[in-house]
Formats: sequence, C-alpha cells, structure tokens
Amino acid sequence: MPKSKPARVHPAPDESPADSATEGAALARRLAGWQVPVAQDRPARARSKPGAGAFSLAGMDPGATPFSGGDKARDKASVETLATELDVLQNLFYADKRFKLLVVLQGTDTSGKDGTLRGVFGKISPLGVNTTGWKAPTDEERAHDFLWRIHHRAPGAGEWRIFNRSHYEDVLVPAVNGWISDAQTAQRLQHINDFERMLAETGTVILKFMLHIGFDEQRERLQERIDDPDKHWKFNVGDIEVRKQWTQYQQAYERLLGATSTASAPWVVVPANSKTHRNLMIATVVRAALLKLKLRYSPADPKLEHIKIA
Amino acid sequence: MPKSKPARVHPAPDESPADSATEGAALARRLAGWQVPVAQDRPARARSKPGAGAFSLAGMDPGATPFSGGDKARDKASVETLATELDVLQNLFYADKRFKLLVVLQGTDTSGKDGTLRGVFGKISPLGVNTTGWKAPTDEERAHDFLWRIHHRAPGAGEWRIFNRSHYEDVLVPAVNGWISDAQTAQRLQHINDFERMLAETGTVILKFMLHIGFDEQRERLQERIDDPDKHWKFNVGDIEVRKQWTQYQQAYERLLGATSTASAPWVVVPANSKTHRNLMIATVVRAALLKLKLRYSPADPKLEHIKIA
Repeated sequence: MPKSKPARVHPAPDESPADSATEGAALARRLAGWQVPVAQDRPARARSKPGAGAFSLAGMDPGATPFSGGDKARDKASVETLATELDVLQNLFYADKRFKLLVVLQGTDTSGKDGTLRGVFGKISPLGVNTTGWKAPTDEERAHDFLWRIHHRAPGAGEWRIFNRSHYEDVLVPAVNGWISDAQTAQRLQHINDFERMLAETGTVILKFMLHIGFDEQRERLQERIDDPDKHWKFNVGDIEVRKQWTQYQQAYERLLGATSTASAPWVVVPANSKTHRNLMIATVVRAALLKLKLRYSPADPKLEHIKIA
Repeated sequence: MPKSKPARVHPAPDESPADSATEGAALARRLAGWQVPVAQDRPARARSKPGAGAFSLAGMDPGATPFSGGDKARDKASVETLATELDVLQNLFYADKRFKLLVVLQGTDTSGKDGTLRGVFGKISPLGVNTTGWKAPTDEERAHDFLWRIHHRAPGAGEWRIFNRSHYEDVLVPAVNGWISDAQTAQRLQHINDFERMLAETGTVILKFMLHIGFDEQRERLQERIDDPDKHWKFNVGDIEVRKQWTQYQQAYERLLGATSTASAPWVVVPANSKTHRNLMIATVVRAALLKLKLRYSPADPKLEHIKIA
C-alpha cells in the first residue's frame, strides 16, 4: 500500500549553528535542577544506599513549569509544532539507521504516561515507533532475569521504542513491598546500569523521564476516574492501596534516580501537574537529543543518477 | 501423553560427604592447568589487551588426556554412565527450579561441538534441555546489540540450554577479520562479563568449554569430511579459508579466554584430540557442578498425604 511520504525536511533547516548553540544554552538553563545528577560511572551499589547524600525529590515542585512560554494556549501550540517535528525527525532517524532510540516513561499512577504517548508521540507514523506497556511479568518472564523481557523489546537500528513503565518497576514494586532485599535492589540497580551502558555503547540513545506529580494532584485525578463513568476503565481499586504507600514509592524513586542517572542514560524529572507543560518539556528534550545526532539521509547513490523508469 | 518417569534417584546417593570431598579434590587435581585463571573481577578492558601477561594456549597439549582412567574402553563406559547420570540430574534440576544452566561450547571447526552434544547430553529428555546452534546473525539480529539474540535464548528456571557456538563468536570472527576495532573487541568483552555476571547473580550456572584440538588433528578431520561422501554435508569450502587463519584464531581465543574467565563463568580448556576423552572430561565437570548445587525435590506437600484417588 502506498503511504503518503512525510516532507523530506532536514531537521531545523532554518537554524544556523549559532542559533543552535543559543538554543542549547537555553535548554540547559531550563533543564537545570530537573536533570538528575549523573553519578560517576560505576559504583551504583554504593550510590544506591538510601540516606545521606542520596538524591532527593524534595524541593522539586510538581507544579513548576520551567519550559512554559508563559501562556497556556501558546504552550499548546508549541507542543503541536514539536510533535509534528518529531514525526519528521523519526522518518529521518529511520532512514539514517545509525541509532536506536529508547524512551522510558516512569511515574506513579495518573502521572500522565498514557497522555504523553498521545500528546508527544501521537503524530509519528506507527511504522517507526513502537510502544511497550509493561505489566506484571508472566510465568515465563518470571523464570528469567528481570531484564530478559526488556532486552528483547529493545529498539533495533532506526527504531524508536517507548516504554510505558519499564525495568524500573522491578526496583520499585518489589522493593517497596519487601519482596526483594536491600542487597538485591542494589544488585538490580547495578544490572540496570551495566545493561543501559551496553545499549548506549551499541548505538542506543536512552532518554528517561520521571513524571513527577503531587500527592494532591493524584487525589484529584483518581477521584475524576471514579466520578466519570467514561474513565472507570482507567481505574483500578489497587491504585488506592498503592497511594497509601506514596512516601515509600517516592523514596524508592529517589534511590533509583540517584543510582541510575548515568552519562549513558540520564534521568530527567518532569514536573507534571500541568499536562501541557509535561508534554512541552518532554517533546523539547527529545527533539534536542535528536538534533544532537546530526541525522542524515544516506549520500545520494551515483548509480541511480541517470536511471529513468520506463 | 504419559512419559516414562526417570528413576527418582537423588544424585550420587551412594556418596558420603567424605567421598564427595575426596572426589572434589581429585577433580581439582585433574582440572589443574586446564581451567583458565579467573581474572580479578572487573577490568576486562585492561585484561583483554593482547601481549605480556595474557593467557596463552601454548603448552596446552590438545592430545592430553588428564581425565582418562588409562583404558579407552573403560573411559567409554564411564561416559555412558555419566551421560545417564546427567539425565537423572537434569530431571531433578527441572523439579528443583532454583537454578538455570547455560553450557557454552566453543572451538574451531571439527573440534567436536556436535559430537559433545550427542555424547554428553544425548541421553537427556528433550523436555529439559534445549540446544541453540548459533549462525551468522540475521538482518533483524544485526540491527540490535550482539547480546540481544543471546539473552533471548538464555535458560529459564529449571532449564538447561546448550550453546553450540555462542556470543563468543562475536569476539572471534569480526575481530580476526578486522571488522571491529581493538577497542570494540575490548568493549564487547566487557559487555560479555557484565552480562554473564548478571545471569549468574540471577541464578544461572554458566559452564564454558573451549574444545582444543591441534592443527594436525584438524587436517585429518577436514580431510575425512572430504574423502567420505557421507560427511560432505558437514564440509564447507569456507572452512579451508578459516583454517588459513589458524594462528589468528588461536590468538583471538587466548584473548577472550583470558578476559572472560570469571568467578561467575569460568572457562575450561578441553584437550579434544580424543573424542572419548573430550566427552569424559566435559561430562565429569558438568556433573560436579550440578552436585555442588545440592539439588532437591520440593519438600513433600502435607496436604497430599491422605489423598486417595478414587
């Protein structure tokens, strides 16, 4: 079946290198304070110890809007523009074939992972982007190490893969509920760092977003799912139990964010009380990471130069 | 379909702990010099540098028979007994479910990998053991990191998986032919160590055997494949080209053996000019590794105690 071809536009063709540097600096300014400090290479086991010197979410306001232009309507329009740009970039990425892209979306219930998929990645042709929504493991998956099913879904050359939840659930749920020991959690954090470094060293760009909402915001969103019958399908009675463990989950997040934000695969905390802002920030960061890759179509093939199809 | 049930024999029921200790000492004595020294934990990158202090195959006689009882007929009978014991152990392993077993068979053409599968693992019910023979990667596999397809075939709880060739081909063929740089080879060796440590820490027993034959022995075996029409299917003209690179392959083997023999996953070099000895040695080492696990059926279920099927 013929497919309408996306415009063959090189990314940001109107940008001079100087503009690009300015934009990079502006991005860095906005990201400051939201990027989880990159831990020095190896000792995840040590860094993952809870307590002194650990990463803290306290003081990261889930209602902040560091990427906003100041006007909600304008922000919405920016998200639309960015989402369209991401489609063009994905097409180029697919043609280029040098890289793989893995986007990890984590966050508590109602933090907006599904909404991000629609709002940020919704315009991209399904040819080039795949999503995996991770649930509790099956018996076969449980019979293997926790990265077994994850590795199998890692993106191939030219592909984008979005993880809606991820291998990070395996250092959240079992850790909070005491199903794995502190030592096992530390071991898993090390396995994750080794695994992601291997993916990065073999061409995978890894972008990890922690969608950060407040306790009160979650109450509103859960209540809305109960009050609106059209949203009942989104509601799970178990969510109420998980909400009671809010503090434990925040602590588990702090531990994993501190231990697994690496040069290969940094974590960005996204203040996500505002859905528009959440999409704007994620789309901006993804676009910037793609522009850094200097994506390109393969050079023209001289053998094709004089061919006329009869 | 009803299956004939293997004898419910606990491993080596006739062994007292003292016998077992004696046997362990005897095994260690025989293995001495054939186990590749376990490199100190992490720095695979450093250890994999060719040159001074590196592991050497020189002086490891492929015609040696350290595990022989001195009489070929007796050795053959021992292999038969061991192979039957392995079937019983596998059944117990499957019931126990605490472990996974990964056996890696590496070696040049004609070194006897297929023969090992038949001779050592041929009596085990296919219910519990699976073999993967690794060939050149497909396009989809090439689009991922080299461990992607390997991880997917890693054994699950209670399973045995035998690799006929393995991920080690990815630090042999491309390295010898210059398709990957020295730095990339070192990186892959590190990826292998991280990967295998993760598998080991999540319950996988990893046994790696390098089937070591001599240059002259290979000549004879290749010639036999040419002279005997019934063996033509085993012969590949490409094998002659690979034979010309004998020295480079031996060096590549030395590098990988030195870099990836770890506490989690040690390498054993198996002198393999004698097929009987090769099987005897591998079967003995596999059996010993299994006995160390203290495999057991789950405790009897008291709820079943008084049930009579009407």
